[in-house]
Amino acid sequence: MKAGILGYGNLGKGVEAAIARCDDIELKAVYTRRDPSGLKIKTPTALVKSAADLESGAEDIDVLIICGGSATDLPEMTPKYAALYNVIDSFDTHANIPTHFANVDEAAKKGGKVGLISCGWDPGMFSLNRLYASSILPGGKDYTFWGKGVSQGHSDAIRRIEGVKDARQYTIPVEDAVERVRNGENPELTTREKHTRECFVVAEDGADKERIEEQIKTMPNYFADYDTTVHFITEEEMKRDHSGLPHGGSVLYSGETGTDGCNHVIEYRLQLDSNPEFTGSVLTAYARAVARLNAEGATGAKTVFDIAPAYLTPLSGDEIRAHFL
Amino acid sequence: MKAGILGYGNLGKGVEAAIARCDDIELKAVYTRRDPSGLKIKTPTALVKSAADLESGAEDIDVLIICGGSATDLPEMTPKYAALYNVIDSFDTHANIPTHFANVDEAAKKGGKVGLISCGWDPGMFSLNRLYASSILPGGKDYTFWGKGVSQGHSDAIRRIEGVKDARQYTIPVEDAVERVRNGENPELTTREKHTRECFVVAEDGADKERIEEQIKTMPNYFADYDTTVHFITEEEMKRDHSGLPHGGSVLYSGETGTDGCNHVIEYRLQLDSNPEFTGSVLTAYARAVARLNAEGATGAKTVFDIAPAYLTPLSGDEIRAHFL
Repeated sequence: MKAGILGYGNLGKGVEAAIARCDDIELKAVYTRRDPSGLKIKTPTALVKSAADLESGAEDIDVLIICGGSATDLPEMTPKYAALYNVIDSFDTHANIPTHFANVDEAAKKGGKVGLISCGWDPGMFSLNRLYASSILPGGKDYTFWGKGVSQGHSDAIRRIEGVKDARQYTIPVEDAVERVRNGENPELTTREKHTRECFVVAEDGADKERIEEQIKTMPNYFADYDTTVHFITEEEMKRDHSGLPHGGSVLYSGETGTDGCNHVIEYRLQLDSNPEFTGSVLTAYARAVARLNAEGATGAKTVFDIAPAYLTPLSGDEIRAHFL
Repeated sequence: MKAGILGYGNLGKGVEAAIARCDDIELKAVYTRRDPSGLKIKTPTALVKSAADLESGAEDIDVLIICGGSATDLPEMTPKYAALYNVIDSFDTHANIPTHFANVDEAAKKGGKVGLISCGWDPGMFSLNRLYASSILPGGKDYTFWGKGVSQGHSDAIRRIEGVKDARQYTIPVEDAVERVRNGENPELTTREKHTRECFVVAEDGADKERIEEQIKTMPNYFADYDTTVHFITEEEMKRDHSGLPHGGSVLYSGETGTDGCNHVIEYRLQLDSNPEFTGSVLTAYARAVARLNAEGATGAKTVFDIAPAYLTPLSGDEIRAHFL
């Protein structure tokens, strides 16, 4: 199977690393909107090409893994390339999923291709677990906790404050709340009761730290509804202690069966040393499914809900029944 | 959708309880190999019929949920009825899955039906999680821990010892081992290091308790490889404290990405108040998928690996994308 990557940020690099561990997938090219001659990639056998080369529809790839941002890149890119290639993206702007799905569906059907959207771990593996659990135990209650991990959106929001040179924000689940859900208590939890936010900030020389801290803690949507702590650190400390992008979290689902009040708790939990490398690994497994489904004749937009798990592995049906069942 | 249940033991009752919570599934009949007139079921609108009535192939059901034992019932029943109806079972004799799959596949294809085998939580949801995790992070290591929960097979094994009136055996995961896997240590664990076994035994009057305890602890396959504790209790205590059938456990998977040694841990965990009611709920969700797949033209044997998650829920694609993605 031949794959292309569009975009070479953290996620694109994560996909490249994932493909390097798959014997059945060959990375043909990384496509970039920047000058290809200025981009160095890790895979010696793959080309660096211009994104413009994709427009002919003639690139020799079975699937294009689109690693762009959900705000402006993917709404335009995924439908555009779904008309020409099998594609997959990690679109995560929840409110706009219906529109994005419809746009990709129309383009992919016209082009006779498959386009899988909103893949990764949330949306993605967490979504799957919410669906599986609620299908098995209808009428139950689901809880999603994120972290401990770096939120890039929240880190960026802090960086936009005047006097801030660099920032890293960790989202941390409140362990007591997780424990209550695990115990089957079915609690009603406010935003503040589920997560806390911890911020590490490098301030510019002479900046008013009190004002920065106040601006962070009162920022609407991002921090105002949370218990937030702010630590001012040096650039060296930032580099030494906060250069990774760990993340994770858990989906918990609690539901009843029968008439004797039997309760069941299902938990799916991720602890990830690198958010982009794990997300890239999920995209790569689903890219395999996308290419296979299209080879079987499927077209149109899909999500993880539409993919039978057997499509994710290079192993045969006999092998997966022997090893995993 | 119209369903039938074959067999009315603990699992059959669990399926009945699950169907009662699904608006889109109607239980038409429970089929029994005993005298139907002697069997009382909970669903007032469903019939109790003889298993022999199934043989015409004319029963008005979209799927038959077969609740028999893996040792002798299912190897015979599932292929037999797969020729006549869409069927699903919870076959769990791992070594015989290839043969069972082949037999059901042949019968179901001849009859133009779908037969899903080995459904439940292990095999079933645990199998799915092993496959998903190893597809995302190839080359990693999986660990399955069972419990704390009642093992019926081990309880039965104790009951066969002379002088034992009743027995209940709990399988208990060793928390320290679970914690080491969660920490990404990738330990090599012996059987003894993963689980302990705790037995509650009601002895007959005058029975030699020391001999019973010795016979339990040295029983090959069942107990000899484990640290086992034995408690002798009264019949009243057994009834009061050990009448439930709780179970659960976890599948943990640990794998790497990239070249910087990033490690990731995926955990899927179940805590079940009632093993048969949860297993019945999984079978019911997959029964929905079996009937739908056949209505779309699919035939032959399937496992949980072959079923796209969207088939498990009565909700539409738009609804699941809005609620769960």
